[in-house]
Amino acid sequence: MLKIALAQIEIIPGRPDINTRAMLTQIDQARQQQSQIIIFPEMSIPGYFLGDTWEQLTFLKDCEAYGQQIIAASSDICIIFGNIAVDWNKVNDDGRIRKYNACFVAYQGRLLGNDNFPYPFRIKTLQPNYREFEDTRHFYSLRKLAIELGLTINQLLQPVTIKIDNQKLNLGCLLCEDGWSDDYAVKPITALQQNGPVDLFVNISSSPYTIGKNNKRNRIFSAQAKSVNAPLVYVNNIGIQNNGKTVYTFDGCSTVYNHKGDIIEYCPSFSPALTCTDLHLTMDNVTCSSTLIPNDDRSIRTIFQSIAYGTKSFLNLIGIKKVVIGSSGGIDSAVSAALYAKILGPENVLLVNMPSIFNSKTTQDLSAKLAKNLGCLYTIIPIQQVVDDTIQQLSNSPIINQKNGEKQTLVISPFVIENIQARDRSSRVLSGVAAAFGAGFTCNANKSEMTVGYSTLYGDLGGFFAALSDLWKYQIYELARFLNDEIYKKEVIPQEIIDLVPSAELSFDQSVDEGKGDPIIYPYHDYLFKAFMEHWNRRTPEDILLWYEEGVLEEKLGCQSGLVATLFPTTQEFISDLERWWKLYTGMGVAKRIQAPPVLAISRRAYGFDHREAQNGFYFTMNYQLIKERLLHE
Amino acid sequence: MLKIALAQIEIIPGRPDINTRAMLTQIDQARQQQSQIIIFPEMSIPGYFLGDTWEQLTFLKDCEAYGQQIIAASSDICIIFGNIAVDWNKVNDDGRIRKYNACFVAYQGRLLGNDNFPYPFRIKTLQPNYREFEDTRHFYSLRKLAIELGLTINQLLQPVTIKIDNQKLNLGCLLCEDGWSDDYAVKPITALQQNGPVDLFVNISSSPYTIGKNNKRNRIFSAQAKSVNAPLVYVNNIGIQNNGKTVYTFDGCSTVYNHKGDIIEYCPSFSPALTCTDLHLTMDNVTCSSTLIPNDDRSIRTIFQSIAYGTKSFLNLIGIKKVVIGSSGGIDSAVSAALYAKILGPENVLLVNMPSIFNSKTTQDLSAKLAKNLGCLYTIIPIQQVVDDTIQQLSNSPIINQKNGEKQTLVISPFVIENIQARDRSSRVLSGVAAAFGAGFTCNANKSEMTVGYSTLYGDLGGFFAALSDLWKYQIYELARFLNDEIYKKEVIPQEIIDLVPSAELSFDQSVDEGKGDPIIYPYHDYLFKAFMEHWNRRTPEDILLWYEEGVLEEKLGCQSGLVATLFPTTQEFISDLERWWKLYTGMGVAKRIQAPPVLAISRRAYGFDHREAQNGFYFTMNYQLIKERLLHE
Repeated sequence: MLKIALAQIEIIPGRPDINTRAMLTQIDQARQQQSQIIIFPEMSIPGYFLGDTWEQLTFLKDCEAYGQQIIAASSDICIIFGNIAVDWNKVNDDGRIRKYNACFVAYQGRLLGNDNFPYPFRIKTLQPNYREFEDTRHFYSLRKLAIELGLTINQLLQPVTIKIDNQKLNLGCLLCEDGWSDDYAVKPITALQQNGPVDLFVNISSSPYTIGKNNKRNRIFSAQAKSVNAPLVYVNNIGIQNNGKTVYTFDGCSTVYNHKGDIIEYCPSFSPALTCTDLHLTMDNVTCSSTLIPNDDRSIRTIFQSIAYGTKSFLNLIGIKKVVIGSSGGIDSAVSAALYAKILGPENVLLVNMPSIFNSKTTQDLSAKLAKNLGCLYTIIPIQQVVDDTIQQLSNSPIINQKNGEKQTLVISPFVIENIQARDRSSRVLSGVAAAFGAGFTCNANKSEMTVGYSTLYGDLGGFFAALSDLWKYQIYELARFLNDEIYKKEVIPQEIIDLVPSAELSFDQSVDEGKGDPIIYPYHDYLFKAFMEHWNRRTPEDILLWYEEGVLEEKLGCQSGLVATLFPTTQEFISDLERWWKLYTGMGVAKRIQAPPVLAISRRAYGFDHREAQNGFYFTMNYQLIKERLLHE
Repeated sequence: MLKIALAQIEIIPGRPDINTRAMLTQIDQARQQQSQIIIFPEMSIPGYFLGDTWEQLTFLKDCEAYGQQIIAASSDICIIFGNIAVDWNKVNDDGRIRKYNACFVAYQGRLLGNDNFPYPFRIKTLQPNYREFEDTRHFYSLRKLAIELGLTINQLLQPVTIKIDNQKLNLGCLLCEDGWSDDYAVKPITALQQNGPVDLFVNISSSPYTIGKNNKRNRIFSAQAKSVNAPLVYVNNIGIQNNGKTVYTFDGCSTVYNHKGDIIEYCPSFSPALTCTDLHLTMDNVTCSSTLIPNDDRSIRTIFQSIAYGTKSFLNLIGIKKVVIGSSGGIDSAVSAALYAKILGPENVLLVNMPSIFNSKTTQDLSAKLAKNLGCLYTIIPIQQVVDDTIQQLSNSPIINQKNGEKQTLVISPFVIENIQARDRSSRVLSGVAAAFGAGFTCNANKSEMTVGYSTLYGDLGGFFAALSDLWKYQIYELARFLNDEIYKKEVIPQEIIDLVPSAELSFDQSVDEGKGDPIIYPYHDYLFKAFMEHWNRRTPEDILLWYEEGVLEEKLGCQSGLVATLFPTTQEFISDLERWWKLYTGMGVAKRIQAPPVLAISRRAYGFDHREAQNGFYFTMNYQLIKERLLHE
């Protein structure tokens, strides 16, 4: 029997001082509860997403110094924690000092584990290098170390032996990705067990929330514990960390799996926890602990939880206490308003309605109703006057050729006027109001708009944060209903807003009262864009056209059956639509995303740093052209 | 004697169709010139910087198909080229299909090299994973393959043997970083030579221009050729490639080094070239070729060349033929105007002067003079009216609390008015003018401003491209003089603009006529910020303060001696200044850069994707606090 404390702390990236203080407090508490071991998450001292801060030697030394404080606190309790480990005598592949993403085991004031390993710590074996992760950029892996030392990886995957209260214990130390070894040639857990046997596996993680992640993690980790017949303790942090363009929530959900792979402890999501557990190291008494079944983390409830937690934490990080929201009477700004009102209190949310001649009374009334329902601050700032003045000023300013004195003037087209309105709202009104109000203004874009750049730069794409930009339009509606039904438990978002045709109302061609609106047909395009972005192998027009030809498109995309034929009576129309959006996704969409605000990630592929992209323009494969020709000439 | 053609082509990233066509043309030409071998750059078919396009299976198949066309063209000429190689039966670490960054050797219609290697191509051994590079994200390395196969890397580093005109030849194939092995434990060139001996080393590269890169490359590669006593052919592409936030120029400068390490061929920079060379494979006749000494690539001439080439190519890529430039009468917009006028012709450059009450007659006159000198299009669009109207409108719009009916109004402070002006210029005037004119508007920010976010979001930080944002202010001045002296050979940028104090002119506190201006003191801060950004080990306030204490600061930073004592009479003032800018660099500066336009990279660390950063706020190390205390209490 072993008394273990899972320290599911909030980690503040780049703040070793604050993190160390928090850890010392947890250690004290665990000690008071007679815990024999306390386990902290991966990179608990420095944080994980720090960009190139790892290239600052002073920062590395600082992390080492704080690490010493933790080690010094281990007199009577074993402390397992994550930190950066530096070998000042070696270099990384880039020539900079050697750095490891490491797991430290400290006891009785010193580090353990260098009896059977070159260092008194353990090194991450598998380094994630997809999505937002870039461990390989900064940290030397155990695989490279093995090659350098002329050893096999399996020789290096040694447990850490510790003696607590006369109990000798073999610890198998894993760092996050080490537990997700399915696709790797190396299986750390198996090798450790062979070099053991291991009495207890510990996986210290810094693992962001993604829809469906915990479901998968529990399947995999449970199977691992069972297969090696040893308990496995997973400790994950909470908090948010970002890579500039993309912000991630860390959900905690630290877990204890027993020998049989059953879950016997499950810490709450997005909350700090110090969970002390009595762990049986032999099979005998396993039956006495009851097993738990965690919630499905794909539910709209968990998505809301992640978004609310992430947004609140981000506001806190950058010190924003009040927000300004451009309120159009449409669904996106309504959901945004309801979200922020919940987080900050309605008295700190200022909704601004900015009508032009194109905005219907319908949406203006709905915007007012929303504000009323939420009880926020509200103001109306019409933009037509300045828009007209701008058109006037730009049309009337003579442009003189300085070489020959020739004069010309500009003609302002209806399309240009659409964008003038959008920029006037965000860059003139909202920015000014936010600055004067001591607030930030939000970006309310959804993922479908983001995908194809259906937005105006310095207009509705502006803002300090895009809390909803990883949600497809159908998820925005789901969230609207959830906010009404479950969070507010009343209709704060008027049902009419949910029922209304989505429209930018930038011209009379987008009149909601006539049922006109966005060119994006969400029930189909949401799923088409999802195939471009979120399918495991990213889908391109070639895949889509092939599925279309084979008659399996709706099934493959997951959209409603029969929809495609209704929307596109002819193949030509289907192809035109496909090419139009693909060109925007890989063209203007990229250009706009480069200058978009940070996006809160919830999906398995969010825009920003999660999805790497170049401004290279569109491309259609050789095979696409063949299929197209075949289809059009049948 | 061997006749080799170096095909220094422009590679269009993401366009296998265009690249293959270009390659086939080159192959024809080389054949006509009786070349026996033609060598293309790394990733010549797909391009190199493609973001996550590598996750599209259809794109991979497409590249394979185009590769087949190249192989088919090798009947009577040996073709060495770069392409993505896919092993459809294996996976990468992320579980996606196995991809290699590979070098193919094709001859007589088939691929060579699988007699002593698992594949009929060679794999990149060393994968750069710093700055803008992220090979490890997508490509499986030879090091990982060696582990997977249970072999040593040296066993896998085998030459490709080819028989041309009864001449048996051992080719040592290297891919870019394989030649930059100084910091790696593995030295591909040495291993290849041991498994050879190799008659000819070929390094196919896709290597972006960076100040000083070619100087270093020639030193290293020359030493390598000499040490293995074999000729080395380096083939690099031209063109531009980007990672969204950062745009890179590829400079070509393909080179032939002989056995002694002398340079015997040097292709031009930033120009396409098909250079045929007669290479002696034995030492005997080496003396007959004359050796070359390339230009210093750190000169302002090369920097200008890279910026002009990069900007022109970027305009071409996104289809912009005309630009609009906000012309303040200051140095940054003047350099921008002179640059674009050179690239596009002055008749396609529209300078817009946008005075408010704070803009002096001095700068307005200088702006007009600049336009006159360049012979561009010019217009004046004052902003004061709309700025006043905006202040009026925001101040007069009642904000109503929807819960209790309480009313408040906003107070617009002078600081808020500064930003209202900046946004009015870019988001209202320039954006509108550019859209109506069928142009893009430029971002004229320099690197010093970028570093500390001395700019307004949706204001002067807006624009489609930031051509000058990797240049410190002192380099902007250097470029101004170079444009006058060497490019235009007359004073197009008025000397008064060069002599004027830099100022944003957003308030009377920034009056240029009174010699007031920016808070950034460029002769010192340029170098301080450079230490944060470009020093090999990134410098932090701890380093700076330590150098200050030791009296070596100016020497370490490279700024003028005596400057620091003049600027900061007391330690307290020095520290306040240091902390102020550090907080901005790691705070608001990051927030602004997230939404900044793409930056053209020339330095060894540009903003955007080259410098990874998180919006984490500022941090001072434990040691910094100690030094600070020591200094202030001495």
